[in-house]
Amino acid sequence: MAAQLGNLFILAAPSGAGKSSLIKALLEKHQSADHYPMQVSVSHTTRAPRPGEEDGVHYHFVSRDQFEKLIEQGVFFEWAEVFGNYYGTSRVTIEQTLHLGIDVFLDIDWQGARQVKKLLPDAQGIFILPPSTQVLKERLNKRGQDSEEVIAARMLEAVSEMSHYAEFDFVLVNDDFATALADLEAIVRGQRQRTVKQKMRYPDLLRDLLGDQSTDAAE
Amino acid sequence: MAAQLGNLFILAAPSGAGKSSLIKALLEKHQSADHYPMQVSVSHTTRAPRPGEEDGVHYHFVSRDQFEKLIEQGVFFEWAEVFGNYYGTSRVTIEQTLHLGIDVFLDIDWQGARQVKKLLPDAQGIFILPPSTQVLKERLNKRGQDSEEVIAARMLEAVSEMSHYAEFDFVLVNDDFATALADLEAIVRGQRQRTVKQKMRYPDLLRDLLGDQSTDAAE
Repeated sequence: MAAQLGNLFILAAPSGAGKSSLIKALLEKHQSADHYPMQVSVSHTTRAPRPGEEDGVHYHFVSRDQFEKLIEQGVFFEWAEVFGNYYGTSRVTIEQTLHLGIDVFLDIDWQGARQVKKLLPDAQGIFILPPSTQVLKERLNKRGQDSEEVIAARMLEAVSEMSHYAEFDFVLVNDDFATALADLEAIVRGQRQRTVKQKMRYPDLLRDLLGDQSTDAAE
Repeated sequence: MAAQLGNLFILAAPSGAGKSSLIKALLEKHQSADHYPMQVSVSHTTRAPRPGEEDGVHYHFVSRDQFEKLIEQGVFFEWAEVFGNYYGTSRVTIEQTLHLGIDVFLDIDWQGARQVKKLLPDAQGIFILPPSTQVLKERLNKRGQDSEEVIAARMLEAVSEMSHYAEFDFVLVNDDFATALADLEAIVRGQRQRTVKQKMRYPDLLRDLLGDQSTDAAE
């Protein structure tokens, strides 16, 4: 598989860390952008669209037949059948997007992250942490009407997810939202300056500056 | 050597790429900063201070005796004697600064960069390129009164330096200055979010969130 100009970012976090809000804010801020577009990876599913859901935006809606053909073709990183419907993340779709120079955000858990990282080692893992156990508890009990048991179960699940933070390349602490968003933007913008990406972005410049020497260096 | 909270950034570029202006602008913008201080690495020298030069700011001014003792103690990454004066980059000074959580910028050429990277593999190399051969030529002939030969010699030297860009982790193209500065800031801010650094920055948070599990994960 040839290298791709776009960066794949794998984002994981426990519930209550604010991952969805951060991704949403990042994409809204940069949706009109220009020479550095970015998008969230869109999963495939066989379930029917709900009101307001758009094909290609919320999901790629496909038939069971189509999905099973895609499984056979090996396009999925991972897929599962849940309550009679298939869900899957298409490696091919992601790679096509990356080839266009678009950064892709993959919103998954540590297990999915591990699998993606194995298949695409150039992917950058970002783990988002809440600023304290106290804040996490409050966020997991937002409606204020959950039983102690329910909250305790959610906390256990959160701790289990967080215990894998060290497998990720970057760690964001979401204490102040604006700061965490700026940190996330910096990671994304910084990764674009990696030499492996710049070689792909500026082949003409490197040839202009280095002449024949650019060929060795840029291959 | 224990890991350090601060990041060491090695900056290299051909003359005319605008490296000094970028470093200066970055430090001026962030000199009053707060929880993420940064500074340029200051070399040691045995030559006398020139008017306006401050000890510890432009150089660490030391006697020949002191410098030779430092050589014996092995504190320098690299040192050289030029026109009867010693110049050296102190590894110990840099490591002490990094331990304080201060990011350090090392302004050197590709040979120095290679040596530093070998001794401190966690250092991040950033190579700065001009936006075209044409612009580079203009920048190398700023005063407009140099002979063709002098400019040609400078260009050869620049191409020789640039031929090593691929040994660096990041490549910045300094076309629009504000964009290049923002790119540099993003690299610096992004590197601070690396997991290895965040483990050092947030030991208490990790213990709070993960309890006993943080010990394994954070070591």
